Formats: sequence, structure tokens, C-alpha cells
Amino acid sequence: MHRSHTCWQLTVDSVGERVILAGWVANRRNHGGLIFVDLRDRYGITQTVYDPEVDATAWSLADSFRSEYVVQVHGTVRSRPLWQENDRLSTGRVEVIVDKVVILSESKTLPFEVSDYTNANEDIRLKYRYLDLRRSTTFDKIAFRATMNHFTRNWFTDHDFIEVQTPIFTVSSPEWARDYLIPSRIHPGKFYALPQAPQQYKQLLMIGGVDKYFQIAPCFRDEDPRADRHSCEFYQVDCEMSFVEQDDVFDVAETFVQELTSTLTTKKITRGFRGIEKILEKNKKLITHDDTLAEKQATDTEKFIRLTHTQAQSLFGSDKPDIRFDMHFEDFTDTFAQSDFTLFQNAISHGGVVKAMKLTWKILSRSEIDDLTEVAKANGAGGLAYIIYEADGPKSPILKFMNTAELEALWTQLEPKEGDMIFFGAGDKKTVCKVLWQVRLACRDRFWLVNSWEIGFCWVTDFPMYEQKDDGSYDFEHNPFSMPHGWVHAFDNNPDPLTIYGCQYDMACNGYEILSGSIRNHDTEALVKAFAIVGKWEEEVKERFGAMYTAFQYGVPPHGGFAFGFDRLLMILRDEENIREIYAFPKSGKAEDVMMSAPSAVDASQLRELHIQLRPEGK
Amino acid sequence: MHRSHTCWQLTVDSVGERVILAGWVANRRNHGGLIFVDLRDRYGITQTVYDPEVDATAWSLADSFRSEYVVQVHGTVRSRPLWQENDRLSTGRVEVIVDKVVILSESKTLPFEVSDYTNANEDIRLKYRYLDLRRSTTFDKIAFRATMNHFTRNWFTDHDFIEVQTPIFTVSSPEWARDYLIPSRIHPGKFYALPQAPQQYKQLLMIGGVDKYFQIAPCFRDEDPRADRHSCEFYQVDCEMSFVEQDDVFDVAETFVQELTSTLTTKKITRGFRGIEKILEKNKKLITHDDTLAEKQATDTEKFIRLTHTQAQSLFGSDKPDIRFDMHFEDFTDTFAQSDFTLFQNAISHGGVVKAMKLTWKILSRSEIDDLTEVAKANGAGGLAYIIYEADGPKSPILKFMNTAELEALWTQLEPKEGDMIFFGAGDKKTVCKVLWQVRLACRDRFWLVNSWEIGFCWVTDFPMYEQKDDGSYDFEHNPFSMPHGWVHAFDNNPDPLTIYGCQYDMACNGYEILSGSIRNHDTEALVKAFAIVGKWEEEVKERFGAMYTAFQYGVPPHGGFAFGFDRLLMILRDEENIREIYAFPKSGKAEDVMMSAPSAVDASQLRELHIQLRPEGK
Repeated sequence: MHRSHTCWQLTVDSVGERVILAGWVANRRNHGGLIFVDLRDRYGITQTVYDPEVDATAWSLADSFRSEYVVQVHGTVRSRPLWQENDRLSTGRVEVIVDKVVILSESKTLPFEVSDYTNANEDIRLKYRYLDLRRSTTFDKIAFRATMNHFTRNWFTDHDFIEVQTPIFTVSSPEWARDYLIPSRIHPGKFYALPQAPQQYKQLLMIGGVDKYFQIAPCFRDEDPRADRHSCEFYQVDCEMSFVEQDDVFDVAETFVQELTSTLTTKKITRGFRGIEKILEKNKKLITHDDTLAEKQATDTEKFIRLTHTQAQSLFGSDKPDIRFDMHFEDFTDTFAQSDFTLFQNAISHGGVVKAMKLTWKILSRSEIDDLTEVAKANGAGGLAYIIYEADGPKSPILKFMNTAELEALWTQLEPKEGDMIFFGAGDKKTVCKVLWQVRLACRDRFWLVNSWEIGFCWVTDFPMYEQKDDGSYDFEHNPFSMPHGWVHAFDNNPDPLTIYGCQYDMACNGYEILSGSIRNHDTEALVKAFAIVGKWEEEVKERFGAMYTAFQYGVPPHGGFAFGFDRLLMILRDEENIREIYAFPKSGKAEDVMMSAPSAVDASQLRELHIQLRPEGK
Repeated sequence: MHRSHTCWQLTVDSVGERVILAGWVANRRNHGGLIFVDLRDRYGITQTVYDPEVDATAWSLADSFRSEYVVQVHGTVRSRPLWQENDRLSTGRVEVIVDKVVILSESKTLPFEVSDYTNANEDIRLKYRYLDLRRSTTFDKIAFRATMNHFTRNWFTDHDFIEVQTPIFTVSSPEWARDYLIPSRIHPGKFYALPQAPQQYKQLLMIGGVDKYFQIAPCFRDEDPRADRHSCEFYQVDCEMSFVEQDDVFDVAETFVQELTSTLTTKKITRGFRGIEKILEKNKKLITHDDTLAEKQATDTEKFIRLTHTQAQSLFGSDKPDIRFDMHFEDFTDTFAQSDFTLFQNAISHGGVVKAMKLTWKILSRSEIDDLTEVAKANGAGGLAYIIYEADGPKSPILKFMNTAELEALWTQLEPKEGDMIFFGAGDKKTVCKVLWQVRLACRDRFWLVNSWEIGFCWVTDFPMYEQKDDGSYDFEHNPFSMPHGWVHAFDNNPDPLTIYGCQYDMACNGYEILSGSIRNHDTEALVKAFAIVGKWEEEVKERFGAMYTAFQYGVPPHGGFAFGFDRLLMILRDEENIREIYAFPKSGKAEDVMMSAPSAVDASQLRELHIQLRPEGK
């Protein structure tokens, strides 16, 4: 060992001891002959002192130290003079008086300084990631990631889940996202694919009787980079259970994420803004389908709020609402159906809707309103109608178009008080939802409507199984292997496919989707009927999902599960806005490893062995 | 939840309770009206009973059960009659008298039976792996793997190592093994490569000050399948430490593997056969290089035996010796240099060697000797010379060619006693080593020289840095980033490259290599000199290993580490001869996933997006 202690271990108890330390030169100060050097390692910092009268050679070597040299020093621990003690360091009451120095490795001037704050741009930080990792702000995130991995695996193991490492080389399923492909050398013309998720494998594990499975699974989707989506690879906490119903799955996911959050952070889990229960009660009608198998709405206040997909869309315009603050949408389509306000009335007569939401106790400036209007326009609105409730009554450019009954309706449903504002959306439902959703989030971020130490989890349940394509045919909206509410009976009597809902759920957190899952369809007959609606007949299902189809013939337990977006959850817990920050060696925004120069051109002989060649451009 | 208890939980304490069980029909017996069904899940088996007088519907449904149906049963726990108790089951003193049955899923007749023993061939087992997993013999291995993962991660975390997930998408380094490549969609004509090991990343983590890193890392090498090498992906326990010397690394690896073995198995760790210390002492001269930096030979008997690479080759003809039994080689080249035995004398005069080893207390039959001779021939020998020491003296077809001095020398070095045999190898050193190594292992397996509950770990140290190619030039024998013994001075005064040894080590176990590692070269000057010997100049190193070369300019701590072959270690601990057995979903011997049909042909449109096309055959 090149050291007897780390740079964090020495305290006043060590005074008088002979020690050997090794680390990086973080700071060097020459004080009238005495040289002081802060030696740094992963664990901490220790002050070392060089006195020419103690050892001239050591002193003169120390005089040659530059930042980030790696050095080994031998010396004796002594107390610092009282006035030099540093209470911010665990080692702040001692120093090492050095009598021998070995320079282990020199360093050129760094492209950026090793300090908590840096203004180096991301590309430089990524190119020299090994230097960036010396900054405690970067290192802490990587250490946190390790702690989260550790907590997660132990939690699931303690709860009787078995970790299974599912294959990384598997088969292409281009019906979901785009696959990454790997040409096979041994099987010319054939390709492996990296798994987009271990979905089929985990279901096969249930059919194999594994009962409870988990894995922090690497997943791979060839999608375009985004701030909350890492390129190439990402990780999910993948989990599946047999003989469970939706409530059982919710229990596991809720307990896990609550224990994770409270163990690893000081964040406070909020159950939603005041009054959300009342709003949900009022909106119960929005659970539109015949929910014979849906579990009861959780009433235990320790549980997370549950919104159906329909409710989430209707109240927040999103299937991943941030429930830490209100500003839910109220519908005024009926109110303005016959209005003299042509903008609203026109929207409605063309099949659209009018919705409004209330911002409490913020009178916005002209420029703030302009900003929000820009957000609305960027998301497809023509503008952003609003009413300001001042001390002497409502003010708005659109007020003159409204009659008393309409104003009354606004008053009744939204209860605006002095200092409040109302924003409107009018047009086709999809656009209105999107616009108000984005305006709502913009308000959150600009007017500090939430605290960063607050986390708001909620469930979004009962996703529609199908969506209608432009040509009138249907496609799966989400996971085709989800059990429809009503099981096989959901398909009886030719119902409208758009009214079939799946036992499918997401967990949202602070406006991000952080979990997705479902109770699976374990019934061959129901599965075949589910696929028939999207025009895939039994033979095609057999062909496309051969292993699953065959496995379904041999005794399948009811099962369900979920996958947490591990990276995204980590990003939220660390208050990072860019997912790249929580990887040790992230890909850049262009899906490149700028440090290793990946991807790269390869030798022609490598391609030849793989039975492929580059495609000439333009062909 | 579809059940109130698992099939393992009910005991006499539960008698009288109403319960709901769910699981697979493992066994059904109709005993004169009463039906008995063994219900199975991952946890155990519970006997359920159906009596037409208790519930006629339940009885008649039970009568329709076939093997592997998944059913849910409601009933009451009762004690079994004393004479029906089954002490082999935790639930063997109770049964559930059923009054309600739900068939959750039916099953066709399985392609093979769910039982501990199966004679189904591997391809069928892999195609229906989900059924194979229901067999406890298969499931136990997967559960063991999970336990080993769990133990490993917690062990390293408890010892202050930080888990870092290094990138799975990285850059091609074809100078090692063959890479798996992934065409980039976003960067036409460029490819990612999957990492053969996280070697460079873990060194960069050390340069980044992470100090102690570990990971159970997926690794990818496009090599041809083998019984002890899984296709496509495999896992290694990867570890790296800063400010350490070889002994520090050995301490970590030895402590880990000993605690792992003793915690998870009943295997006994052997320190080698009796007398190995004496043999090593005698062979000390085989440490030929000027070992200024080599650590002292460990003398603590709790430590693993250490052999230099030269010793291992010379004594066992292999760099991964099985040290649980003797049969080491003795050299008789000097003895037979002037012999009248032309076979031996010829070999020596052509630059070859004569070696011999002793098999104790086994007089082999003619056919056993023939078998071993076949092994020798298959590995390049012309035949297998031997002497049998019978009660009335040595017997051998070659005895007539030997003089008394030669027999005396054999006697002195090998000390054969009545019932022993000596085998000879003569010829070029490499072939002799290979032949005797294989004959030695064949003796082990055929004559039960070791116990399967015995595990013998040993270190092989001081690997040669270089090998000479046929054209006289040199290449790296192993890892070019290893520190040579003598550091930068190893290259001074133009030494013979073949006499430069690296601070590089393997751990062998029962004849397998299970760990490989080294103290790394952290000195730019030494690194550049090391590459110069294989004809790679500084510019080329910069080009090939840009990130590493650049990183070496900014303060590098001395560091070293290792990687355990996780799968291979698991295979040894479970006494499996085929590495595929310890994967949940293994690739076949042809690198295929026969269950999912991977690899597969893909759509032309997918290739087009990736800017590649298939190469026409023959081009």
C-alpha cells in the first residue's frame, strides 16, 4: 500500500503518529519559507507542511509541486495552532509535517479547475470526464447512483424477489421503438438486437414459476437524444410478480419508492396539493368504463393519489401530471356552447372544448403574460386568453365578450379571489390539453409554485388499450400484453375498441413518468382477441411472438409488474435537469462518447467478417 | 392477491384456517373418490384434497386437472392422518380440504416432465426454458446466481468500493479479441462496439480519483462458443484500486473469494496438496527475472499458494494449474542429454526437453494406459512412455533403454514407491508441457484424484510481457497496460524483451483461470517504452488509446486490480461442466437463443436506417 491512511482519517487522536499519505495536490501555499499543501483523495483533504529546517529535500520537492500532481508524503501528525484550525474539515485540527516526498505522477495544467463550481462547458467536461470526476459535485452523483443501486437490490432481495440477469443479446422487435442491431459473425445475414426492455423474458420467468423477479436492467432504444433520455443505454428497475392484482403491485412499488426516497434523501413526499381529494371525488364520473375488475380507489391517505388516464388528461392535460400544486383544468365547454364570444363558440361548434385553470395569488406583469403566451403559441394555440381578478373586479381584453351567466359559471367552478388569474384554452381537445399543460408547467417553474425538496408521486391508471389511426384502423396505444379491464369479456359484443381500457398504469413524479407497468394478459384467448383488433391474426401472433405464444399453452399464472426509470428517478432525487449528469461516462447530446471517440469508423475486415458492408449514400 | 399463502407456508399451526392457494398441479391421485392434488409454486408443495361430499363442483373440477394446470383453490387446513405425514416437506403434516376451485390457466402436455431429473436434451430444454425453470434443479442454479450477485455486491460495497456502471456502448478495440459492433443510425458509417471488458474505463476512474471501484460487468467478445465460455455476453466481477501494490490486491481478491465460498457453499478450500511448499522451495530458481518490485512470497499458510508463471508452466505445464493434487513435473533433460535412449536423446539434441510426473498408488490396466496414450497423442505426442513400479521392481517397454544412473535419477527426483507409475514427455518444451498437462488432468478425472467438494485456488504471477512472433518481432503476451517489473528501468540497456515480466497475475481454481489482473503501468514514459518494443510509437499509442494517453498527462495514481470470471466461478462452485447451465436464458452451443430465435433476419428498412447492407456472398 502506498499510504497508511486516507486523507480523511487523521484526527487529533493521531497526533504524534508516523504516517504515509498519498493523493492529489489540491492547493499549495508558500508562507515565508513554510510550504502548505492540501492533499486530496476521494475521502477528504489533509494539510501537509514542509519546513526546510525539517527536511530540505522534501521542502524543495514540495516547492516544485503543481496542481494535481500525485504525491506520496511521509511525516508526523501534529496539532495545528488553534488559530489555524478548520472546522469544515474532519481533518481540520491536524496537519502532517513532512520529511519525505515521492512524486508519483506529474500533471500538466488542467483544461479546467478541479473545484465544486465550474464554468467549463459540457463537451469539455465530458472529453476529460476523468478530471470532471475529481470534482466532488460530479463524484457525489456517481456515489449516489451506487448507493441507489445498492439500496434497490437489497430492498427487492429482502422482499423475496430473485434477481435474474436476462439476455443482452436477443431478437429484434421493431414493432416497439427502434432496435440496436448486432450483426452475427457465425450466422451470416442474421442480427441480434439489444433488448428495449426485458418484457418478454420477465413474463417467461413468471411462466417458469420464478414468482417474484427483479433486475436493474440495462435497456437499449435507438431513439433521438433528449434531456430526460440518455442515448444508447439506460437502466430500469424491472420487476414482475405472479398471482398478484393491481393493488399488490402498487403496494410493492409505493413501499419501495417511499423507502428509497426517505432513506437516501431529505426530500419530503407530498400526497398532492390540498383539495385534490375533493377534485377527484368531483371528477369520479371521468372513470368512464365498466370497471368490473378495477381495484377500489385507495382511500388510505398514506397511499399515493390515483388518477385514471382519463382523469389525468382531463384535469392536467397529461398522463404524467405534477400533483404538487393545483391549477387543474375545469371544463367550460357547456358554458360557452352558445356564447357570443365567437372564439370560444367556434371552437366548440367544430367539436372542440373550452377549458380553464386558475393561478392563485399572482398578478402577472405584461411581460410575464407575454412569456406564457409564447409557451401557448409554441404548443399550437393562437394565443392565451386570461382574466385577472383585481380588487375592483375582473379585468381582461376578453371580458367584453362574456355575459353574466358565463362569468358566474367561472366563479362557481374556479372560485377566483382577488389576486388570482384564470387562463383559457379553446380548440380541439388534444391541443387544449397540451397548451394548458405546458402553460401550467411554465407557471410552476417561473413563479416557484413548488419546492425542490418536495416530491409528488401519483398513479395514472386504466390506460386505453387502443388508439385509432388516420385510416380508421386501430393500433395498440401501449403494451399489447396488458390485460384489458373485463378480461376476455372486454372483447365480447364488438365494443368500440377505444372504450377498452387496460389494467395498465404509470407512476408520475413531478411531471415525469417514472414507472410503467400492467397486469398482464395471461389468457391465450384474450390475447388472440386483443391482437385481432389491430388486424394481427393468431398465425401472425404465433410468428411474431413465438416463444410467448407457445409458453401460453403450458400453464400461465396471473402476473403483473412494472419498471421504474432508474435514471430518471435518480435525476429527480438529485434535482438534475439533464439525465447525462447522473452517468459516470455519459453519451453526449449527439449520442457520442466524446472521450473515447465512439462511435467510430472500423476496419473493412471487421465488417467483412460480419457479412455486412456500408451502404453507398443515396441508395 | 390471488392467494393467502404460498405452497410452503402452511404448518400444523394453521390447522383450521381458511386459506387460498394458487400454483401448478404437480401431481394428481384419485383414491377411491377422494382426489389428492399436490400444488406447487417456487416455494414448496402443499397437498390439497377434494371430497365430492364436501363440494361436488370442486371435486369435479379437480377431476379435470391435468399436469401443470394453474389453479386457485379455497379451503380449510387440516392435519393429515399420522400415517400420511410426509417429513420431507415442510408442509407434510397438513393438507387443505378444498371447497372452491378456479382454473386460472390450462396446460397442454409438456414436451418434458417437470422433475428433478430429466433426459430431455439441451436443445429442447433451452427451447422451452420457461418449463425447464420449473424444475428445481434448474431453478436452484438461477437462485444461486442471484445469491452470489447479492453477496458480491454487498461485499465490495461493505469494503468501500463504489459500484460504477461503465458504458455498454463504446469504441472498437480490435487489437484484443473480436468486437461485437453496432452500426450507428445518427452517425452514418460509424459503429459502436460493446466492451470486451471495462479495462480502460476502470483505469480512467482511478485517474478520476474514485479510488476503489467495482462492478459485476457484462462483457462481450465475439469468440467461438466453448463449454467454459458463454457466447455473446458474460459477466465479470471487475475491480480496481488506487495506491495499491500487488499484495494489497491479492488480499482483497483472496478475502472476497474465501468469504464467498464459505458463505454460499459447503466446499472446502484446500491450500494445495501436501508437499507443495517443499516443491515450490526447490523450484525457487524458476523465478528467473530480477524481481526488484515483486512482493515477497506469501508465507502465511492462510494465503493462497503463489506460483510464478515460469514455475506454473514448468511444474504443471499450464498457467492455470489444478493444485488440489500433485503429479507435478520434474525435469530430466540433463539426465537424458547423453542417453542411449535415442527417443529422449534426440528430443534433447533438437533443443527439446524430457519431463516426467508420478501417479501414486494406481496400477493402470492396459486399456487405461491406452486411453491416456490417446490423450497424449491428441495433444501432439508420438506416444506416452511410462514406467510401472511393481513389487518386484520397475516394469516398462522402455526400461531396456535406460541405464542405472538414469533410473537412479528418476528414483531420486520422483521417489516412486510400489504401486506408483511414472509418465514421460519428450520433445519441444511447449508440446511436452501441453501433453503432460492434459494427461495429468485426464488422470484426475478418470482416477478420482480430487473430491468435488474441494476447491484449490492459487496465484500465478509474473507473466511475461512479450512473446516473439515467427518473424522475430514482438507482441504483447497479455495486457499492455501492466506495469513491468522494474518499472521504467525494465527497458533500460536494451534487455531481451522475453525477459521482461509484468506485475500481472491470474488466479487459477481447479484447472480454470478464474481471475486476471495486474498492477497497471501509470507512467507515461514506461508506457511509451513498453509499446515501442512491439513497434508502436508514441504517435500510434496516442491515436489508438487517445483517452488513456491524454489522461496520463494529468496526475495518475499507482493502481491495479482484477476481474473474476463470475460465470466460471459460479460454474465451479456448482460443479457444472457446462457454463450454459448457470444462465437463466443461455445461448446454445451455436450462439443462438433457440427459444427467441435470435439472431434473426431483419427488415431491409432497418438496415437502411443504419446505413449498412448485407455483403453479397463470396465478395
